[in-house]
Amino acid sequence: MRIGIIGGTGREGRGLALRWAAKGHDVVLGSRDATRAQDKAREIAAELAAGSGTISGGSNEEAASAGEIAVLTVPYAAHEETLKSLRAALAGRILVDITVPLKPPKVTQVQLPPGSAAALEAQALLEPSTRVVAALHHVSSAHLGDPGHAIDCDVLVCSDDEAAREAVMGLLGDLGLRGIDAGVLRNAVALESLTPVLLHINRKFKTNAGIRITGVP
Amino acid sequence: MRIGIIGGTGREGRGLALRWAAKGHDVVLGSRDATRAQDKAREIAAELAAGSGTISGGSNEEAASAGEIAVLTVPYAAHEETLKSLRAALAGRILVDITVPLKPPKVTQVQLPPGSAAALEAQALLEPSTRVVAALHHVSSAHLGDPGHAIDCDVLVCSDDEAAREAVMGLLGDLGLRGIDAGVLRNAVALESLTPVLLHINRKFKTNAGIRITGVP
Repeated sequence: MRIGIIGGTGREGRGLALRWAAKGHDVVLGSRDATRAQDKAREIAAELAAGSGTISGGSNEEAASAGEIAVLTVPYAAHEETLKSLRAALAGRILVDITVPLKPPKVTQVQLPPGSAAALEAQALLEPSTRVVAALHHVSSAHLGDPGHAIDCDVLVCSDDEAAREAVMGLLGDLGLRGIDAGVLRNAVALESLTPVLLHINRKFKTNAGIRITGVP
Repeated sequence: MRIGIIGGTGREGRGLALRWAAKGHDVVLGSRDATRAQDKAREIAAELAAGSGTISGGSNEEAASAGEIAVLTVPYAAHEETLKSLRAALAGRILVDITVPLKPPKVTQVQLPPGSAAALEAQALLEPSTRVVAALHHVSSAHLGDPGHAIDCDVLVCSDDEAAREAVMGLLGDLGLRGIDAGVLRNAVALESLTPVLLHINRKFKTNAGIRITGVP
């Protein structure tokens, strides 16, 4: 599958690209600075084994329109502006929003955004034909970027569109992660607000905490 | 220790009373209907082994003022009214608020209350000398009420008062649970909103889901 990663030159983008390409997917890293994305893509692609998918770089527009599914990994401060500029490019596609509305420097405290959740704000900013899925808020980018690391963390996945959620859960499996249906998109409030709690735990215990849902077969 | 349970005649109250009394604590179950609480207390106490603490019943005021720590287990619809009536009784004490602001029948969807979290609303309604601690939102009352059941669930614990949080974490250990410091009281938003997600998972998988925090030593 062809997957675009908007704002893909950061730590999350690197880990996602490496793991997805290793499973044969073709990944397009996007950035406001397309040259930077191309450099980054070449750098990451050099780590791939023979037989993997490809990693290329381009503009955020190119990443958004690369395939059926695009992933958004920008800081919350750039969330609204980025989405407004990609409204047309994302029409008819699935957008996986992994944004957490952190307010530095108080990143260990829940800060509800005006629309209650970044994912709800995204859906309101985008065309109705763009199906927003919220996921991947709790996986440490340090763990994600080490393809040999078995990640001890489940991924809660919210969406108002059943087929979009299922498609994303399949891609999570290719990252080595278990996706769990967490209900409607509104439940992204819970997912996003749990991240500051995990950051508090990380700071206190000097760790990279994750979550597991127990009792699920 | 003497522990009061406000609204203690429900399923949570029964499980907490059984497990704490078995560890030697003296529990006071409170209800708007003191006679009902007395009956319930006798019924639960009959299940205790010799050498356990005691379980008695009384009014919510008696439960609130029974000891240093009181636990609030009422439906969200009764949250504000109950707290207003106990303002004086709870002054100077620790209140463990386990309330989840569910809006039946949509209990599998996050519904943020006007004050963002029931625990924040509680702190605003009560005297500043009452230290509110948010905890126990994710433990299934079915599992809690079966004292032989080893519960596969961590308890995230929020408070703005370090000593109050520590005291509550100790009591969680007596329930057979691991308490984890989840930061400031504002982080109760995350704890409370995760419960509808777990209820969604329960409904979908016909289970009693819980959570574990991974990576914590």
